[in-house]
Amino acid sequence: MQFDISQRAQRLTSSAIREILKVTEDPSVISFAGGIPSPQTFPVGLMKEACARILDFAPHAALQYAPTEGYTPLREWIAERHGVTADRVLITTGSQQALDLLAKVLIDPGSRILVENPTYLGALQAFSLFEPILTPIECDGEGIVPGALTEETILGARFVYTMPNFQNPTGRRLPVSRRRQLVAAMKAANIVVIEDDPYGELDYSGEPLPTLLSMNPDGVVYLGSFSKIIAPGLRVGYAIAPMPLIKKLVQTKQASDLHTSGFAQRMVYEVLDTGFLDAHLSQIRALYMAQRGAMLASLASHCALSMSWNAPEGGMFLWARVPDSVDAVRLLEKSLAHENGSRVAFVPGAPFYAGKVDAHTLRLSFVTVPPARIEEGVAQLASTLAMLL
Amino acid sequence: MQFDISQRAQRLTSSAIREILKVTEDPSVISFAGGIPSPQTFPVGLMKEACARILDFAPHAALQYAPTEGYTPLREWIAERHGVTADRVLITTGSQQALDLLAKVLIDPGSRILVENPTYLGALQAFSLFEPILTPIECDGEGIVPGALTEETILGARFVYTMPNFQNPTGRRLPVSRRRQLVAAMKAANIVVIEDDPYGELDYSGEPLPTLLSMNPDGVVYLGSFSKIIAPGLRVGYAIAPMPLIKKLVQTKQASDLHTSGFAQRMVYEVLDTGFLDAHLSQIRALYMAQRGAMLASLASHCALSMSWNAPEGGMFLWARVPDSVDAVRLLEKSLAHENGSRVAFVPGAPFYAGKVDAHTLRLSFVTVPPARIEEGVAQLASTLAMLL
Repeated sequence: MQFDISQRAQRLTSSAIREILKVTEDPSVISFAGGIPSPQTFPVGLMKEACARILDFAPHAALQYAPTEGYTPLREWIAERHGVTADRVLITTGSQQALDLLAKVLIDPGSRILVENPTYLGALQAFSLFEPILTPIECDGEGIVPGALTEETILGARFVYTMPNFQNPTGRRLPVSRRRQLVAAMKAANIVVIEDDPYGELDYSGEPLPTLLSMNPDGVVYLGSFSKIIAPGLRVGYAIAPMPLIKKLVQTKQASDLHTSGFAQRMVYEVLDTGFLDAHLSQIRALYMAQRGAMLASLASHCALSMSWNAPEGGMFLWARVPDSVDAVRLLEKSLAHENGSRVAFVPGAPFYAGKVDAHTLRLSFVTVPPARIEEGVAQLASTLAMLL
Repeated sequence: MQFDISQRAQRLTSSAIREILKVTEDPSVISFAGGIPSPQTFPVGLMKEACARILDFAPHAALQYAPTEGYTPLREWIAERHGVTADRVLITTGSQQALDLLAKVLIDPGSRILVENPTYLGALQAFSLFEPILTPIECDGEGIVPGALTEETILGARFVYTMPNFQNPTGRRLPVSRRRQLVAAMKAANIVVIEDDPYGELDYSGEPLPTLLSMNPDGVVYLGSFSKIIAPGLRVGYAIAPMPLIKKLVQTKQASDLHTSGFAQRMVYEVLDTGFLDAHLSQIRALYMAQRGAMLASLASHCALSMSWNAPEGGMFLWARVPDSVDAVRLLEKSLAHENGSRVAFVPGAPFYAGKVDAHTLRLSFVTVPPARIEEGVAQLASTLAMLL
């Protein structure tokens, strides 16, 4: 049988990240590829208690169909944390679903949307299904360059998509002055800002910056997630949006999956309700800071002459660059082909670009591999790179 | 701020079902409206054990990011039950998500798709977001009329969407001869069949009919769900599709929510793996058969002169019709406005129609309300109807 596939689906291809994650299922690979939280941060004991409480005291409500908007106590918890009312909060099946819903509500075929360059690959995938025209905005090591937000560039765009805190893939953080400029420019041009913030709580600077949401609650859609601070396998995220948008997002979600697992939502809420989060976040931050330190130290001892990189103040990733003579995809292939020595995985930068590609960039995650293996992996990467130079 | 909403989202309106479900949150309402499983069928004890096992023996895997395709043992369980290979099985966030993914993969704006009339409202909502042209196929009390599948009607359609077992909303079942004719006609015209089968296991006839999938595995996409046989609040469903389609569905799902909650998938699998399902299904069937019997008996004693209805051999719903002088939406309003006597909810038939509407039809669910209250509700409905006649 011949299948008549939609135009949008014909354009879909397997993502590089996905293919790479398959290789890294082999535990002998040292993987700096995945944006995967360290499993030792999962609050397993609290979850066990949460499951027992839910099934003892509210089994029928937790296992029954539930309202599309989400579990009210969880929505209230989120609303309080962000200083908004709970009716602006929609629980989503991970942050990824919020991107899908926003695309459904805001993108017509041919709509122009503004993205950072490079930007989160999963957002490019979610948006591209709805056939927008992507306009990449010029970025530097601190994110969107305010001078690039010219009227010509932004006018008529449906939204700008940005990850101001410890961006995936670059790890960079948008300074507060640029945040204000971005929000003001978008407000003046009547363009919605989508602030994707999965890493905001993973701040190692001790000085978190104000959200874009706090700067213009009526013009910003904020996306949050419990994947990086509790556990990704529950698939619980959320969107905070102005009322006219939240209504459309709820209707769209109803058509997309009715609602997010009520059991998973209650697990998240029960765990949060123990008041453990602040202490838990301190532990996660300490762990990841140590791993970031190990990676920065290893890079300094092994790669100082052959690579450049940044030192992010939070999140999971740093962004590196190899010399112009080396393509990062080639480096990855070589790095995974080793027969002697460790195989090392990372994500080449190319698929994250929506505009001009820098093929010599790569994303290194420091959160999954313990410090001793970080050292081993970086040393191996340096020696593979040396062979290509 | 003005929001520039996509055309598809502008057309979205709140569904009648949804508004009605809000009213039925009040426990004093006798609700025949929801397609909501009886909570006494939820295997709470087995789930408690399942949660403990998962968190004792595989907490990190269950709580981590996981492959988009789904949890392998669950996919294998499903594959074995349907006589297919596991690589054809994709786990979805409820069946509803499978409708969304199929729409993404198969519908371009203006694509023609074939639907039963009336049909499942949630499918109409999922498909409509992708702006198809709906062609309703003529149906009678047994479902799609084979004679209506003329070349003129079906040619060039992207797919036909059908619920052959105990359809939502009508409760009707497609006879085996019609199944064969439908599958043959679609095969000849190279049109994909989407077989949505959430109620197939709720067969009270003792004689289940062969699936469309079994008649043409390379031309049928089968959608199944654990919502009606384990619990809807876990949001675990699945699609079985030919390989060229499954690959596109997986890519599309990755962009839509990465994967379905791995914890919820393992809960389903662990519960199934106890081997409880066959005995459990017998219990559910016995319970719902008794409730169906109570509703049929109540209708016969109170409504014989004012309504007609069918006697479905499975599922959750029966389909009724009031005289031409009464609009079912008006009856619902009246029925919920009572100050003396019980308020009774049901779903008027109108929103389920994709073509010609019969405004005098209504859907009655017999699974949520216990027999004694079924009698009370039907009696009250009959007296409300009498006032309008």
